Amino acid sequence: MQLYIANQNYSSWSLRAWLILAQYELDAEVIKLTLFTDEFYRALEKVTPTAKVPVLVDGEIVVWESLAILEYVNEAYLDGKAWPTSASERAKARAIASEMHAGFGYLRNEMPMNCRAKRKVHLSAGALKDIARIDQLWSQQMTDYPEGFLFGDWSVADAMYAPVALRFETYGIELSDQAKTYQQRLLQSPAMQLWLAQASTETDIVEEDEAGEAV
Amino acid sequence: MQLYIANQNYSSWSLRAWLILAQYELDAEVIKLTLFTDEFYRALEKVTPTAKVPVLVDGEIVVWESLAILEYVNEAYLDGKAWPTSASERAKARAIASEMHAGFGYLRNEMPMNCRAKRKVHLSAGALKDIARIDQLWSQQMTDYPEGFLFGDWSVADAMYAPVALRFETYGIELSDQAKTYQQRLLQSPAMQLWLAQASTETDIVEEDEAGEAV
Repeated sequence: MQLYIANQNYSSWSLRAWLILAQYELDAEVIKLTLFTDEFYRALEKVTPTAKVPVLVDGEIVVWESLAILEYVNEAYLDGKAWPTSASERAKARAIASEMHAGFGYLRNEMPMNCRAKRKVHLSAGALKDIARIDQLWSQQMTDYPEGFLFGDWSVADAMYAPVALRFETYGIELSDQAKTYQQRLLQSPAMQLWLAQASTETDIVEEDEAGEAV
Repeated sequence: MQLYIANQNYSSWSLRAWLILAQYELDAEVIKLTLFTDEFYRALEKVTPTAKVPVLVDGEIVVWESLAILEYVNEAYLDGKAWPTSASERAKARAIASEMHAGFGYLRNEMPMNCRAKRKVHLSAGALKDIARIDQLWSQQMTDYPEGFLFGDWSVADAMYAPVALRFETYGIELSDQAKTYQQRLLQSPAMQLWLAQASTETDIVEEDEAGEAV
């Protein structure tokens, strides 16, 4: 199994797919490509129709799109345990994961992921609304699962929100107590710490303005 | 089971969730709310945290987000048959469905769904690129399944692209032969024809500028 990702400092979609492999210590070769280089596009055009990361290649099977990769790994390698067991909680987890997959555009545009840079930016009303919704969602889940991840055991939903947890840290976003508890728990998890350690060693410099949610 | 949707003439996300119920003739009460009315927000705030349609309520279970609804109905009522049986085709179908769920923003912004209005609009380079990718994707699937839907039997992937098939028709977009074959097959399916018939009877008038991808 090979997972193609981009710069760990910047590529939030890469993080989501990478995280499920790291969380469950699945055996995969991670191929890291540098954003916006010829090598990036040359390598991707051989494996994916969209020239975007992440892409998972598992023998003859090619999966692009982060949510589809998470669903695939869950089915093929984890016997379904990366979603909650209960049908109602699984439905809710998928709804929450989908909210992140297709939504929160203001937040994503105005707060591109950059693991190393601590900074404050001016946020639009739309971004503040996105943040409020995520705070509400995390707080609700911490009421239901005070000692756990969003649905108790780690799930695909946590992978989807991991880049947001990181952004809230680097952009100094104030959260309610329960949301902050979850954010810190996720950031301190061994898999996230490994990602951050690897991101910190990257010497590639990409202009920040170009390094947002392009991939 | 209740499915909350908005005006059938305008609400593309509603169509995606509605279509799986119609395609498999599942028993559900469809509650149609008029976009941008007080009633719309009042009804939704009782059932969903996001005040958006579609929302599926199945007893104690509440599912929002179209893709999560499709996954839920597939698992709970269809024994998984709304995705391809083969693991590799299922992974590909989920990738394609996810591409639609999170992407094609130019197309969605510049060509809001309006089942009744035939018209031409000026499209940006981004929208033309979105159209080209969808044409490529449909053509590839018609090479693999010349007599069928995107993956032979009807699947969640078809639900996700149904509003696009409709937009390509109303906006007069020229497609390659294979892509057009698929588009017409999908539009002529009984479930799509039923949606269009229902949309055509709506007397609500919503200003077009407001009626895009707001929900």
